[in-house]
Amino acid sequence: MVMNHVATYRVYYEDTDAGGVMYHANYLKFCERGRTEFLHALGYTNASLREETGVIFVVRHIDAHYLRPCYLEDALTVRSAVTGLKNASFTMRQEILRQGADDPAFYQDIVLVCVDEDAKPVGMPPALRASMEPYQGKKQQ
Amino acid sequence: MVMNHVATYRVYYEDTDAGGVMYHANYLKFCERGRTEFLHALGYTNASLREETGVIFVVRHIDAHYLRPCYLEDALTVRSAVTGLKNASFTMRQEILRQGADDPAFYQDIVLVCVDEDAKPVGMPPALRASMEPYQGKKQQ
Amino acid sequence: MVMNHVATYRVYYEDTDAGGVMYHANYLKFCERGRTEFLHALGYTNASLREETGVIFVVRHIDAHYLRPCYLEDALTVRSAVTGLKNASFTMRQEILRQGADDPAFYQDIVLVCVDEDAKPVGMPPALRASMEPYQGKKQQ
Amino acid sequence: MVMNHVATYRVYYEDTDAGGVMYHANYLKFCERGRTEFLHALGYTNASLREETGVIFVVRHIDAHYLRPCYLEDALTVRSAVTGLKNASFTMRQEILRQGADDPAFYQDIVLVCVDEDAKPVGMPPALRASMEPYQGKKQQ
Repeated sequence: MVMNHVATYRVYYEDTDAGGVMYHANYLKFCERGRTEFLHALGYTNASLREETGVIFVVRHIDAHYLRPCYLEDALTVRSAVTGLKNASFTMRQEILRQGADDPAFYQDIVLVCVDEDAKPVGMPPALRASMEPYQGKKQQ
Repeated sequence: MVMNHVATYRVYYEDTDAGGVMYHANYLKFCERGRTEFLHALGYTNASLREETGVIFVVRHIDAHYLRPCYLEDALTVRSAVTGLKNASFTMRQEILRQGADDPAFYQDIVLVCVDEDAKPVGMPPALRASMEPYQGKKQQ
Repeated sequence: MVMNHVATYRVYYEDTDAGGVMYHANYLKFCERGRTEFLHALGYTNASLREETGVIFVVRHIDAHYLRPCYLEDALTVRSAVTGLKNASFTMRQEILRQGADDPAFYQDIVLVCVDEDAKPVGMPPALRASMEPYQGKKQQ
Repeated sequence: MVMNHVATYRVYYEDTDAGGVMYHANYLKFCERGRTEFLHALGYTNASLREETGVIFVVRHIDAHYLRPCYLEDALTVRSAVTGLKNASFTMRQEILRQGADDPAFYQDIVLVCVDEDAKPVGMPPALRASMEPYQGKKQQ
């Protein structure tokens, strides 16, 4: 079974630009919010992870597709699934959907690397890695 | 009776800075989110207000007090009350509180002016003005 | 001959996050600043382009590689080249380099589509298209 | 003699909102850029200040006046003067002017407090304090 993590956010003035739509870099912010909430759903926080295991995750690669614009006051759903789990990194597919839409307005494939305090890649904490396994899905697009 | 509007938001990485705390300008963003949700609670959206009545609200003055820092992954409550209602403008006191705190980490008094499409101040739509009256409170600090 | 457009920006507190480095989504902002200055170097502004030709450019795809972190108060160079020119779209390679560095800290390949007021793809204005040709380069990485 | 520190920045898409103007919280960002460049003009960086003297400056109070809107691609000048120097804090008047304008579009009075690593107010480093004295001016508005 494939589990997706879901979080919902409103588009506020701060997220839009003079083109009348959501500013393109802010889709990445909405996805990061979704990843933080995903981490919380697994029983971790960014702060606890760093304090207890000495590791943080850094972004290595983002492949982002902009399909349809989003607008002021839209309610957007961020849907996240783990699409790859390696020793020191993992990949997520994250989609952003406008309320009531079947197809995403945006999606990205993101590679995150687990690093220590010297920014060296290290193996993910085993318990965290295990907690991600139920969220592994296939790329849907 | 004084009513306050309340909205809650998480502090994400995007909101913090290299000082390890929430970046000072972002407190204003959290307050703006609270005002948009307040408008929704009154039965309006920014978009519908502009389309149906031809007016928008612009910020004229902000008096902002930073009392305590906020941190990554904090759950922050934005508490908003109307503290003054004039013909073409109104004033709000907005407070930001960390979860479980009795005292605000931040508060601001903000003056918003109702303007038409030529940016000229105009009287607020009467129905909107009436809907704000229950939220009128006294400055608590 | 291949021309690159170059613009330089400082990293301020607003650009950093609690991890002590530049926030990942803000690399896209720095690249957008570079594209706007590139447009100015060609003799256009976003505003004039819309007013005179009725078109704007929207982001369709970004493929972003994060190679090294950037820090508060870094002076960053955004180096931009046109890597593909089609009828209604073009591709840019944009690199971000820390002062004195030979290798980029970040680079992205971005596809921008020329659209009309109804968000329909349309051919690029011929004069604008011609002005981009000297900036066509090969992908360097 | 009164000295003002001056820095100039372009308004990019990231700074605007769906209202077609610069987003209100971003005026504070432009002022913070100006303060960082002012610190550099005095011979310091935020990083060096923390490393060498163990102190940072935190925002305590902002009184902000929005007089005229700013627009996409405007070149904005941030003009900063020290208007008060105390033992552990100082006050600045910062104005933002559109190119060619005599009157500011925005101005703020900001109180910054010098704190140690435990966020306790401490006296400003004497050499830094002395370097600010030529920039002391009167409030001009």
